[in-house]
Amino acid sequence: MRILLVGATGKLGTAVHEVLVERKHDVVTVSRTGGDLQYDVTDPAQVADLYQTVGQVDAVASAAGHVPFKPFGELTIDDYQAGLTGKVLSQVALVREGLAHVTESFTLITGVLAREPIVTGAAASLVNGAVESFVRAAAIEIAPQRVNAVSPTVFTEALDAYGDYFPGMKPVPLADVAQAYVRSIEGRQTGQVYVL
Amino acid sequence: MRILLVGATGKLGTAVHEVLVERKHDVVTVSRTGGDLQYDVTDPAQVADLYQTVGQVDAVASAAGHVPFKPFGELTIDDYQAGLTGKVLSQVALVREGLAHVTESFTLITGVLAREPIVTGAAASLVNGAVESFVRAAAIEIAPQRVNAVSPTVFTEALDAYGDYFPGMKPVPLADVAQAYVRSIEGRQTGQVYVL
Ligand SMILES: NC(=O)c1ccc[n+]([C@@H]2O[C@H](COP(=O)([O-])OP(=O)(O)OC[C@H]3O[C@@H](n4cnc5c(N)ncnc54)[C@H](OP(=O)(O)O)[C@@H]3O)[C@@H](O)[C@H]2O)c1
Ligand SMILES: NC(=O)c1ccc[n+]([C@@H]2O[C@H](COP(=O)([O-])OP(=O)(O)OC[C@H]3O[C@@H](n4cnc5c(N)ncnc54)[C@H](OP(=O)(O)O)[C@@H]3O)[C@@H](O)[C@H]2O)c1
Repeated sequence: MRILLVGATGKLGTAVHEVLVERKHDVVTVSRTGGDLQYDVTDPAQVADLYQTVGQVDAVASAAGHVPFKPFGELTIDDYQAGLTGKVLSQVALVREGLAHVTESFTLITGVLAREPIVTGAAASLVNGAVESFVRAAAIEIAPQRVNAVSPTVFTEALDAYGDYFPGMKPVPLADVAQAYVRSIEGRQTGQVYVL
Repeated sequence: MRILLVGATGKLGTAVHEVLVERKHDVVTVSRTGGDLQYDVTDPAQVADLYQTVGQVDAVASAAGHVPFKPFGELTIDDYQAGLTGKVLSQVALVREGLAHVTESFTLITGVLAREPIVTGAAASLVNGAVESFVRAAAIEIAPQRVNAVSPTVFTEALDAYGDYFPGMKPVPLADVAQAYVRSIEGRQTGQVYVL
């Protein structure tokens, strides 16, 4: 399949890229500063341009998304908005604008904080919860195109940076997370949140 | 208790108001155009002013929130943003700004679409999912203050207007929804989503 991978140069994106190439897919990589094409998906106009440039693809895989982490008392309304712009509206735009360009599926990224809170994670929880409910809802209206979310806990490979915020929570290897993208793209399910 | 009720003049707010008065609470009612005090809670500056005017309260109950309903292909990014401003950031502001003014609890409104999608409801699902995950996360950081969400299906009293969008889904009487506010306010639970 021809697959558009957004956030392809990040920790997660690199792992997803590897497994998609192993599985013989033709992957077009995107990020703001690296990959085959440079676009900022927080700007809906750039998302539309991106699809015009890329033309038809079979699937879109999103592995990008930024949300501020701060103690609850320090999170401002602008911080929540930054998370919504950086991880929710960007991924909504990938689906909306992609309807005319994507044959089969969209796979979005969320995370464990939708279900399990951590200290400093209120904006991230809000943002992940939004994406997961969006995926369930969009699925029933965009069929036969499909949309799923991948919702991992902290990556084993990110424990050095973030481990202290996830006390006693078992991490997940990036290789497992990447397989959830394969499941979403090559399987036939829709409206699913793959929890891992 | 002294309770600030936002959206007090709406369908839900009127039912919540009635039951809180029956239970001998002192209720201060708010909406943009009616009630004891007129404030627009989508404006964080007005939320801050509202708390300055009201002074200390024991609990805040929110029964306000607007989200656009449209077929998926017609929902624009601005529509999603309107829902986020109209039901998510407004309620986040009530909690954030309220930390210094509210002794016991916050009760927010979400809805069944967080879990169960309907056609035209993608923005509403996204918004409700955001509020529910926010409540779980905020709860662990604002203790001993508490925060819960009330997440009803379509109101029996709203079936005339919205029933066609909820085929085969059992409605809930407003009187039951109002009891969930009592449970949140007078009980001691936090981080809960009361589904009904
Ligand atoms: N780290 C964890 O343990 C963990 C756990 C669960 C979920 N997640 C989620 O997984 C996602 C990826 O995390 P990660 O750790 O792999 O992040 P990362 O290493 O920072 O990678 C982010 C990738 O997205 C690209 N990107 C960022 N903003 C972009 C934009 N506006 N437009 C286009 N591309 C953009 C980045 O490249 P450029 O900078 O060049 O744009 C990079 O390729 C995030 O949504 C995160 O919340 C992470
Ligand atoms: N209807 C249903 O079946 C159903 C089911 C599940 C969940 N819900 C949710 O329940 C909530 C209330 O629904 P409803 O049917 O009772 O709505 P409604 O009858 O339209 O009442 C809304 C109330 O909120 C006030 N309000 C609206 N925007 C406001 C703002 N920005 N600042 C301050 N007050 C504001 C309105 O008064 P003013 O116009 O004067 O401001 C009114 O008092 C909504 O969030 C809705 O999504 C509804």
